[in-house]
Amino acid sequence: MNSSEIKQRIEKAVNDAKAKKPLAPSITNTVTVNLVANAQLAVGGSAAMVYLPDEGECVAQIGGAVYLNMGTLFPIYEETIPRTAKKLSELKKNWVLDPVGLGIGSLRTKLILGLKDNPPTIIRGNASEIIAVAKLWNVSEFENSNGPVGVDSVDSVESAEKAARALAKFIHGAVAVSGKEDLVTDGTTTVFSKGGSAYLEQITGAGCSLGGVCAVYAAVSDPFTAALTATQIYNFAGQQAEKKCRGSGSFQVCFLDELNNATAQDVAENPFTIKEE
Amino acid sequence: MNSSEIKQRIEKAVNDAKAKKPLAPSITNTVTVNLVANAQLAVGGSAAMVYLPDEGECVAQIGGAVYLNMGTLFPIYEETIPRTAKKLSELKKNWVLDPVGLGIGSLRTKLILGLKDNPPTIIRGNASEIIAVAKLWNVSEFENSNGPVGVDSVDSVESAEKAARALAKFIHGAVAVSGKEDLVTDGTTTVFSKGGSAYLEQITGAGCSLGGVCAVYAAVSDPFTAALTATQIYNFAGQQAEKKCRGSGSFQVCFLDELNNATAQDVAENPFTIKEE
Amino acid sequence: MNSSEIKQRIEKAVNDAKAKKPLAPSITNTVTVNLVANAQLAVGGSAAMVYLPDEGECVAQIGGAVYLNMGTLFPIYEETIPRTAKKLSELKKNWVLDPVGLGIGSLRTKLILGLKDNPPTIIRGNASEIIAVAKLWNVSEFENSNGPVGVDSVDSVESAEKAARALAKFIHGAVAVSGKEDLVTDGTTTVFSKGGSAYLEQITGAGCSLGGVCAVYAAVSDPFTAALTATQIYNFAGQQAEKKCRGSGSFQVCFLDELNNATAQDVAENPFTIKEE
Repeated sequence: MNSSEIKQRIEKAVNDAKAKKPLAPSITNTVTVNLVANAQLAVGGSAAMVYLPDEGECVAQIGGAVYLNMGTLFPIYEETIPRTAKKLSELKKNWVLDPVGLGIGSLRTKLILGLKDNPPTIIRGNASEIIAVAKLWNVSEFENSNGPVGVDSVDSVESAEKAARALAKFIHGAVAVSGKEDLVTDGTTTVFSKGGSAYLEQITGAGCSLGGVCAVYAAVSDPFTAALTATQIYNFAGQQAEKKCRGSGSFQVCFLDELNNATAQDVAENPFTIKEE
Repeated sequence: MNSSEIKQRIEKAVNDAKAKKPLAPSITNTVTVNLVANAQLAVGGSAAMVYLPDEGECVAQIGGAVYLNMGTLFPIYEETIPRTAKKLSELKKNWVLDPVGLGIGSLRTKLILGLKDNPPTIIRGNASEIIAVAKLWNVSEFENSNGPVGVDSVDSVESAEKAARALAKFIHGAVAVSGKEDLVTDGTTTVFSKGGSAYLEQITGAGCSLGGVCAVYAAVSDPFTAALTATQIYNFAGQQAEKKCRGSGSFQVCFLDELNNATAQDVAENPFTIKEE
Repeated sequence: MNSSEIKQRIEKAVNDAKAKKPLAPSITNTVTVNLVANAQLAVGGSAAMVYLPDEGECVAQIGGAVYLNMGTLFPIYEETIPRTAKKLSELKKNWVLDPVGLGIGSLRTKLILGLKDNPPTIIRGNASEIIAVAKLWNVSEFENSNGPVGVDSVDSVESAEKAARALAKFIHGAVAVSGKEDLVTDGTTTVFSKGGSAYLEQITGAGCSLGGVCAVYAAVSDPFTAALTATQIYNFAGQQAEKKCRGSGSFQVCFLDELNNATAQDVAENPFTIKEE
């Protein structure tokens, strides 16, 4: 894919989300669930959040694409996550996995291990999380990593590139790695997206809501385009919001405004570089 | 009721909420719970949210009125919702039902069916939800509806008018239907409230927080006045906030400011029309 | 301790939190969890929220200090809270207890009673909550109190001073009482911190997020300094934010900006008085 083709795909995804208002339901953590929904609505999508097993199956059915985020687990997730993932696989729907907090407690590891059989079409995480999933699923050689510590990454985006490409090939989808420069890959084509803001690390839920926005775009495009479009609109909106805010509180407000107002061209023209394997 | 009488009731409800700071506890979804509480505080009320059965019974006792919202169900709700509703009926307290997401999974339907025996005094929802509750409780003839899809309405407010009136008579209370123009009815008098903003659909929780604010006013007035006062302050604040914001992010901030600053006269004078059966 | 020594400790805590970005995980309520995390990030800390028992033990291990808030209980808390507290005691980690809503339902009382054996190093609450914990643990003579009503205090800060000092001695830590003037005590030295804003009572989560920020500072300092530094930054930021906002919505945004931008000197120089027993 060349730059011009990628830009066309991004523009189409941004415009289609605004025109079709696709429903992109989530099973996601309680900390950032409000920002996930508001970010999804800001880019034109529709949100619905659930916790129960048959509700997960139901939203898999009615949603254009689904977002699963492991941030805060409830006991019922032991049933909800596998059943929802199975239903999504059967329906061949796009869905986004956000393996937040992998390493905290035993249920996360168990659930994510189980998802290897009904994998997502997009995985979004920080470098440490992406490396951890690649190891857990045994899809790439051992990578040097200290593992996730809490919910923050201790690895650089570059160090996760191999794991990301291997995971993308394994799921026949796309992987997005958040960091100073964000990486999106389908296993062959890898794009590095620039921009963003240091404030994105000073608010909670920048990553989670990016995952939710990936799901909105995945309801109207292929996984790679969806993950890239979401990453690009975040980098564009983050950079604009930083210019207008007075601290981390107003940054979040400005950021939602910028997501809401960004045009397809703004998103497509946000700087990126392409690297083919 | 004539226009002047209605305005007097609204002014009294707005002023009483500010003077008495009534506690209006909620059992509500995790997505918008923060906005519900902040909206309740903005209009002068006090908030407290719980999930457990005996806690539901306890807040039914100590609250002036209660808000139950079905947005995100936990397994424990199978006990919490019926026990809380039963206690509220025994205590003859006003309470608001928000049947969000009816149609997703089986527990919502089961819980709302069960509430027919201990009904709320106010039901607030979008047109599709109101029609769905009326059907489920078998209180009105079949209405043409495609049913709720996720959490958004696929029906117009007008198409839900008959169901709303029938429900209001059945519960001996009031029903509020959100849409382009909002409808509030006690079964006999139906008021259409104007104003609001398209941004209210671009933020999550406009409807939920309206339900929470209904409960604040229901702690200091009758159900019809409470539902109408809440609807009027939302339409006033929405219209004002739209003039001052720069997108969906700043809209929510401005909206809370306007809720916080609206005077009793602002709310009473927001345009509405009256239709007697 | 004299005023100059106290100011030096405060400055060091503010600067250390910014430099070390300590992880201060929480088990906290769903209403205000987002604000807790954003406030922790705003002052330089890192946040991670969990609900499950083994996850509580895990974050006790990896966190610099932990925040436990009883606002919205889930059934699993019957296991999670005692196991997390036990692990924190074994590890001799600082942790903050926020006994929100004590008196609502039976589980809160049972859990807080059980914490007497593995007590926190900081307790933060309003006057009614602090008096209620002191009674429950039988650490001070009977104080005149109407008990907590919902989540709001019905007692003055002054009326909780004796209970606060007794509790602080019992836990060999610090107690912070929020009110018009805030009190922080280690049982011997009691500081009254001035400033703040009436708007802090018109947004949800001012108290909860203060508890979360206590935990951030408790990861880099002793309990008394941590509780006092958090209280001082809240009073400074509240006063500044009030000057810049236009209502309760923009107050919260401005308040986070002020937390984010406050310097160590701003926080240390916020007015306070000292009272030695």
